[in-house]
Amino acid sequence: MTRSAGIDVGGTKCLAVLLDDDDNVIASERVPTPHASKLADTLSDLLASLGDFDTVGVGVPGLITPQGVIRSSPNLSSAVELPLGDQLRSMLSVPVTVDNDATSAAYGEWKVGAARGATDVWMVTLGTGIGGGLVSGGVVQRGAHGFAGEVGHIVVEIDGELCPCGLRGCWERYASGTALSRLAGGERGEDVIDRARRGEADALAVVDRFARYVAVGLVSLTNATDPDVLVIGGGVIASSEVVMPAIASHFSSLLYAPEHRPHPRLVSAQLGEKAGAIGAALLGRQ
Amino acid sequence: MTRSAGIDVGGTKCLAVLLDDDDNVIASERVPTPHASKLADTLSDLLASLGDFDTVGVGVPGLITPQGVIRSSPNLSSAVELPLGDQLRSMLSVPVTVDNDATSAAYGEWKVGAARGATDVWMVTLGTGIGGGLVSGGVVQRGAHGFAGEVGHIVVEIDGELCPCGLRGCWERYASGTALSRLAGGERGEDVIDRARRGEADALAVVDRFARYVAVGLVSLTNATDPDVLVIGGGVIASSEVVMPAIASHFSSLLYAPEHRPHPRLVSAQLGEKAGAIGAALLGRQ
Repeated sequence: MTRSAGIDVGGTKCLAVLLDDDDNVIASERVPTPHASKLADTLSDLLASLGDFDTVGVGVPGLITPQGVIRSSPNLSSAVELPLGDQLRSMLSVPVTVDNDATSAAYGEWKVGAARGATDVWMVTLGTGIGGGLVSGGVVQRGAHGFAGEVGHIVVEIDGELCPCGLRGCWERYASGTALSRLAGGERGEDVIDRARRGEADALAVVDRFARYVAVGLVSLTNATDPDVLVIGGGVIASSEVVMPAIASHFSSLLYAPEHRPHPRLVSAQLGEKAGAIGAALLGRQ
Repeated sequence: MTRSAGIDVGGTKCLAVLLDDDDNVIASERVPTPHASKLADTLSDLLASLGDFDTVGVGVPGLITPQGVIRSSPNLSSAVELPLGDQLRSMLSVPVTVDNDATSAAYGEWKVGAARGATDVWMVTLGTGIGGGLVSGGVVQRGAHGFAGEVGHIVVEIDGELCPCGLRGCWERYASGTALSRLAGGERGEDVIDRARRGEADALAVVDRFARYVAVGLVSLTNATDPDVLVIGGGVIASSEVVMPAIASHFSSLLYAPEHRPHPRLVSAQLGEKAGAIGAALLGRQ
C-alpha cells in the first residue's frame, strides 16, 4: 500500500491528511500556521505525526511557481520568494509537490468530490478572498507560469471599490465571505445567512444582492471557459439552502445565450475543509 | 501532398483558403455570405473553386456544438440549430470539422502566427463584438459543450450598459470596434485612431479610454487562466501604433500582483483577415 500525504496551508492553521490507495482519509492532523521562516520545519513535524507516507503534496495560498516557490502570499505575508518545495525536499526522502491551495481544492473536488466525472470545472472558494481552481479538457490547469485561478481579481466593476491589491472593482470585494459581512453592515456572514433562512426581509435582501455579485463572476468564468460543473466552496455560504439557490437564479438570468447552451451544474463543495489537503495529496501522488 | 481547405464564415463574406503540407496558403477565394438556408451549398461551391482538397475545416461565429451544429449565431441570424457539419459531410467526400470562428483564428495564430510556441493563449478579436479563443496547457480548449471563448459577454460593469444579448455591462459594449466608434461619438474607429496618431487631444482621450476598457477584460482573462501570450485581432485596432501601447500600459497597471509574476506578451495578430480560415484549415486537418 502507498500512502499519500497532503497539507493545506491556511492563514491560521495547517491541515494535513494521509490517504490510502483508495483515497480514504486514514489520518489527519492540524497545527497553527507558523511564521514563514518556520513553515518547512513545522510542516515536516506535522507530516511525521501522520505516520509513514510515500509522497507529499502541499497547497499554499498565493502565487506558487511550478518548482514550489511561494512568490507572494496574501495570507502568509512574510512568505515572499520562499522556496518551500526545495526546503521540504531537502528534509524529506519522498517526492514533494507544491501547488496553489485553490488549485489543490479544485483537484480534490474534481477527483473525489462534487465535480467527479466532469471535463471542465471551475471551483471557487468564497472566503477571506476568492480562490479559484480550473480544470479544462480533463486536465488541471495552472497556466503558463503557475498562476491560473486568481479569480478574486477579475474585474466586475471597472471603477468600483478599492481592493487591498491596489486595483478597483475586483470580484472578491463583492462576492467573498468578507464582502458578505460588509454588505450586511458588519454583521457576521453566518448570522445574516441564518436570519435570511428564518425569512427576515433585510437579511434576504442582503443575501440576494450578494448572490447576484457571486453570479456575475461565475457568468464571466463560464462565458470564458464553458465548464460543465461549477463548484462553490466556502463554509456557511456554500452549504446554505438560501444562498446557493439565489446564486443559481441570478446565474441563469445573467448567462450569455442561456437558451442555446447547456448550463453548467452549480454545486456545493463536498469535501469541506479537507478539500485542499486531499487535493494536494492526490496531486503529490501523480 | 495533402491539401487542407479552411473557410471563415463572416457576417458579410465567406473567405476560403487552401493550405499545402507546409501550411502555405496556395489559393484563396471569397464570396458574400448567403442566407443561412443556402450556406452549405454556397460553401460547397466555394470549396470547389479552390481546387482539390483532402480535409475541410469551417469557422463560424456563434455557439457551435462539437458535431458542427450552429446553435445560434449573432451575425447569421437565421442560423439557429443549423446542422452545417452534417450538411457539408453529405455533400463532400472528405472529413469536415466546424468550430467557432474565434477558436479557429486563435488556433491559426497559435500554430503559425503571433502565438507560436506558447502554451497558454487568449486571442481576442475586437470587431463588431469580441470573439475569444483559448489555448490552455498546450491544447486548444472548446469547453465542456463547445462554447468556450464567449469573452464578449464577460461582465466588466455589473450595472453597466445594456447589451443586445439582453444583459448589462458586457465587455464588448466597451471594448469592441463598435464600442470604439460609440466612445468617439459615432466617428468611425479608423478615423479616430488616425486622428490620435496625428496627436489630436480629443482623439487621444477616446483611444485611452477605449484602451483601458480593453485592458480590463484582458486582465480578467489573464487572472483567470494565466496565459503566456495575449493576441489582439481586429483590423485597424490591432495594427495601430497608438492603440496597442495604450492597451499594454493599462494592462500592466491593472494586472493582479504585477511584480510577482511574469506578464503575458501582448501582441498583434499576424495572420490578418485570413487567421480564421487558416486556423479552420489546420483544425480540419487534425
